[in-house]
Amino acid sequence: MPVASSPPLHQLHAWQAATLLAHRELKAVDLVRACLDRIAERESDVQAFVHLAADAALARARELDAGAVRGLLHGLPFGVKDLFDTFDLPTAYGSPIYANQQPLADAAAVALCREAGAVLLGKTVTTELANMFPGATRNPHNPAHTPGGSSSGSAAAVADGMLPLALGTQTAGSLIRPAAFCGVVGYKPTHNRVPKAGVKSLSETLDTVGGFARSVRDVALLGAVLTGDARLADPAAFERATAPRIGWCKTPEWAQADADTQQAWAQAEKLLAEHGTPLVLPDGLTGLVAVQKAVQAFETARSLSHERLHHSRQLSAPLQSLIADGLAISGETHALNLQATARGRQQVRALFNDCDVIIAPSSIGEAPAGLDGTGDPLFCRSWTLLGLPCVHLPFARGRTGLPVGLQLVGAYGDDHRLLAAAHWVHQRLAG
Amino acid sequence: MPVASSPPLHQLHAWQAATLLAHRELKAVDLVRACLDRIAERESDVQAFVHLAADAALARARELDAGAVRGLLHGLPFGVKDLFDTFDLPTAYGSPIYANQQPLADAAAVALCREAGAVLLGKTVTTELANMFPGATRNPHNPAHTPGGSSSGSAAAVADGMLPLALGTQTAGSLIRPAAFCGVVGYKPTHNRVPKAGVKSLSETLDTVGGFARSVRDVALLGAVLTGDARLADPAAFERATAPRIGWCKTPEWAQADADTQQAWAQAEKLLAEHGTPLVLPDGLTGLVAVQKAVQAFETARSLSHERLHHSRQLSAPLQSLIADGLAISGETHALNLQATARGRQQVRALFNDCDVIIAPSSIGEAPAGLDGTGDPLFCRSWTLLGLPCVHLPFARGRTGLPVGLQLVGAYGDDHRLLAAAHWVHQRLAG
Repeated sequence: MPVASSPPLHQLHAWQAATLLAHRELKAVDLVRACLDRIAERESDVQAFVHLAADAALARARELDAGAVRGLLHGLPFGVKDLFDTFDLPTAYGSPIYANQQPLADAAAVALCREAGAVLLGKTVTTELANMFPGATRNPHNPAHTPGGSSSGSAAAVADGMLPLALGTQTAGSLIRPAAFCGVVGYKPTHNRVPKAGVKSLSETLDTVGGFARSVRDVALLGAVLTGDARLADPAAFERATAPRIGWCKTPEWAQADADTQQAWAQAEKLLAEHGTPLVLPDGLTGLVAVQKAVQAFETARSLSHERLHHSRQLSAPLQSLIADGLAISGETHALNLQATARGRQQVRALFNDCDVIIAPSSIGEAPAGLDGTGDPLFCRSWTLLGLPCVHLPFARGRTGLPVGLQLVGAYGDDHRLLAAAHWVHQRLAG
Repeated sequence: MPVASSPPLHQLHAWQAATLLAHRELKAVDLVRACLDRIAERESDVQAFVHLAADAALARARELDAGAVRGLLHGLPFGVKDLFDTFDLPTAYGSPIYANQQPLADAAAVALCREAGAVLLGKTVTTELANMFPGATRNPHNPAHTPGGSSSGSAAAVADGMLPLALGTQTAGSLIRPAAFCGVVGYKPTHNRVPKAGVKSLSETLDTVGGFARSVRDVALLGAVLTGDARLADPAAFERATAPRIGWCKTPEWAQADADTQQAWAQAEKLLAEHGTPLVLPDGLTGLVAVQKAVQAFETARSLSHERLHHSRQLSAPLQSLIADGLAISGETHALNLQATARGRQQVRALFNDCDVIIAPSSIGEAPAGLDGTGDPLFCRSWTLLGLPCVHLPFARGRTGLPVGLQLVGAYGDDHRLLAAAHWVHQRLAG
């Protein structure tokens, strides 16, 4: 087994491990054990998990090693944000209200991964009800900094080599932001291409299931299973990927990007100079951050009606404040915001006449210092509202040495083209 | 209390009862008792409920009578399709897989109704996982006929005077069809205006929470609470409602409407002759029934992944067949179907330049004889896919004396205008 000796097993990319596993050149039980060893070594610093399923994962890995190859994720360990129900592990949604809740069924996305042969290693930390109040997780690059949120544990665990793949969700910036802060690839699929059954619902208009890995090909493998679209993981698509036409979109919020994101932007411009043209958002697509905030607050406040009415003392102050903001918005205003969202989703299609993908900031900059917040999702809000697929690409370092990167945004439903383009772009950026 | 003596309390419309309750001219406990008496008298024939909460409802009614007026639904009994989680009653989703499941929280829509003062009387029968395999409920007009589905118990209970209000959901035609078959008003709000948190998820693109009552003003009262849009229940809007411009849309499926629906259509044309013009759907909006079927099958098959993988023997043959159909659709085809849906939702907006509301068939005809199916949602599929708000208006009788009617369809997010128009139209049709 010469391939597995370098790099260490726990650092293998998912698609590399998947190839070895499918060819029986690597045992699932060895990969699981390597990940568990890494977790044992690092978890006290990173605190990515709320539950580990070590024994069950080893047993499942042995089963898989003894049987036929199940699917695209055969033998790959994965982590699941504790916002997804799991039939064999408690699911608390990051809230004391649901401490020790034991669901009867897996969330659909979890079941699809297991069906494809993935091995559930554990549940990862989410912020409280996938909102702003942080969990215990620290940034694996510097434990004094936030890993971002709300999919904090999933991003940190993948970044730290504890897992090759992990599931998360995004309502504002909960996939792309922690991917940026932890320096991994984060993938938010087109809105509603991945089933949300069994995921705690906050905002129907915004909530999107996605995941993290350490390369574009890895998230594409996960994406193929989650969407059922085999094109996403077609090896030929990556091998023959050619230069995409890139729309360079600094967004109307560019003034809030700090020196680190500006530096990453300049670096990308230099490396990809001949590919694409600047893209200025037309009127109608410039005020979407405010619309996204209002839609999120309105829908979250109402989705959490039971919690608000029965358990308000167990909700954090920031979440109570968001709920209060949401309750202050009238249903009439919300209808207008939904209509504005529908118009935006229609209008944005034309942008992709002149480019294949849009490049845009992922975050204001590096992960902020401190563990009392998870950073600002500012640069993700509009793309989430528009329902477009997004991939965060890590490739730079900020002033304090923490990861920085940019995101690529694709056309609605064009996830396969976005991922092939992201693979090409990431190779140029990350070398 | 002279008003309450005629009609009998259990037949009061929700808005009439709400007015009396708010003015303390009617006690919630008396209204609840009247509904419970009606249920005791009729439930063995209709079989609308899976759980009754008689004692809890009476206790809650006494509490409400003793306290301040809570909101728009103060003191009104309501029923909830057993697809919605309830913290105080088991929730089985119409499936043996979830027999005796006890959720920790109310679905958001249930919590919003309770917050507005409504009294939960019980959980109503749903077909298996809100699909085609029927529950025990019979049509209250003729127990040898189906009540329709999947919101079977909610529609039948309201039709039979057991409840003034009930919650349901629609993925294909699960609100409008049972409303048509049972002869009540059914309201499907604009897609995603009502939170789905805590409702068993089948298809993100299609699932919509709505409800049943015995008048348009009643469903509007419920709708105002569910959407948070006070305009829906503004009494002045109903009083000053004027003739809407009606687009008469027989739909491309008109050839499948039977003599009863054709007769209802002719009757409506006669009564509303001067209001509006025929509307022929443009290319791009004519093939949506097939798209809706494929989207529903694909998303349902994947949403029910856990059930399929762990409990397939507890799924009915028709549901297994739908799941097999869904699994046979590729993710690539589904992406095209989602793009077609997005284009349709955009294209349909122009139809409302020339009309305020569309009138269209609700069902093929009367409720079919037999209890082994729930009828065909054919005439609801396209409007559900388009995400438009719909109201079923009962006003005619078919050949065997069962109810028949038509639906009004509004523009996206224009629920308040649709409901005001529906009130005006229903008064002309039902006299």
